[in-house]
Amino acid sequence: MKERNPTGESPEKKAAGIAAADLVQDGMVVGLGTGSTTAYTIAELGRRVDEGLDILAVVTSYQSEMLAIQTGITLTSLAEHPNLDIAIDGADQIDKGLNVIKGGGAAHTREKVVSRSAERFVVVADESKYSEQLNHYVPLEVLPYAKEYVSQQVCRIGGKPELRLAARKDGPVITDNGNFVIDASLGTIENPVVTAAILSQVAGVVEHGIFTNVDEVYIGKKDGSVEIMA
Amino acid sequence: MKERNPTGESPEKKAAGIAAADLVQDGMVVGLGTGSTTAYTIAELGRRVDEGLDILAVVTSYQSEMLAIQTGITLTSLAEHPNLDIAIDGADQIDKGLNVIKGGGAAHTREKVVSRSAERFVVVADESKYSEQLNHYVPLEVLPYAKEYVSQQVCRIGGKPELRLAARKDGPVITDNGNFVIDASLGTIENPVVTAAILSQVAGVVEHGIFTNVDEVYIGKKDGSVEIMA
Repeated sequence: MKERNPTGESPEKKAAGIAAADLVQDGMVVGLGTGSTTAYTIAELGRRVDEGLDILAVVTSYQSEMLAIQTGITLTSLAEHPNLDIAIDGADQIDKGLNVIKGGGAAHTREKVVSRSAERFVVVADESKYSEQLNHYVPLEVLPYAKEYVSQQVCRIGGKPELRLAARKDGPVITDNGNFVIDASLGTIENPVVTAAILSQVAGVVEHGIFTNVDEVYIGKKDGSVEIMA
Repeated sequence: MKERNPTGESPEKKAAGIAAADLVQDGMVVGLGTGSTTAYTIAELGRRVDEGLDILAVVTSYQSEMLAIQTGITLTSLAEHPNLDIAIDGADQIDKGLNVIKGGGAAHTREKVVSRSAERFVVVADESKYSEQLNHYVPLEVLPYAKEYVSQQVCRIGGKPELRLAARKDGPVITDNGNFVIDASLGTIENPVVTAAILSQVAGVVEHGIFTNVDEVYIGKKDGSVEIMA
């Protein structure tokens, strides 16, 4: 798996990330996703807060919490504000039906709760993330003691499970919730809603990376333009 | 909610718990459930281990771990033994179709993983747990930051959510996995498989207490006899 590098400049990601910040208006409570594209949205929102934009934000990870604090965005929580006006987040793959796979950053469980709590869920990504059909591996956040059981269940539905190993610690990646991640290669996912339902029902899976609740996708192109899919 | 008291003597629970211990044979790897009835099974298995029974056990909670260690049963884990020969566990309610509700002890997530990992899943209970149809509240293990979202979803499907408060600490019960429990009153559950699927798909629900994978139920009666439902 390639290492994630949220600091490398990307004009496509930047274009999409900044365009989505336009959707955020005074008085809104905003869900802030995780990852390199959303980082541009957070930076842009921070810039607008400096200029007087008045918002509250709910984060989805330690990463987005740290970025939001750095940029001076006021934070709140789902406990205080269970209903968000909008959530903006990245994705690992997007299909033509606006189904997406997330979880490369191991933050998809909180991201899913935040996106489901939002009136409007907007995904930002560069064009390399688009695919006619979903065929990316599906990250599963898994309770540590259920690792073997979940791996077996992934095999039973014809998939290939791989425990995600950490790059900068020994052993497996540990999520912000203290769990493992199993990346499940399932081939082409013909029906994301059905696969999502099957994965949800595997005991020990805290959350899977298939999202079927996206309202719009902002795709950043190499020329700096942004295509909106809705 | 009534306090759980695993130390009070109950002839019905004892009869069921001990009868199920008969199913465990030399060489088996056994899943040990949590709760007052299973405690009798664990005590009986410990007695038989003293007499030479050779088994390994996987526990489902700190409670069953402590009981198993006290009684001298050798412990293993799902990582070492992902396939169990049998799992024996209690229940809060049992219907005529062998669907059960568990989670009064807040251990249902590990209990579900263990029961799903077992070749044979046997439930032990006293006769007060039987009901023609399931109408007991369904315990949901919930990620703490998803408390409000999950509560709203329980309301949306017509239920009444109640955050389970602790009796011997301030604030909410914290599960062995570090999460909250929301007890969802859903009225009579006409189709446990459908309700289970719906609850599984709520983001932030780690696991719900409906089990549809029970092979046999051992019901202990007041006269000390045991009825087997299969």
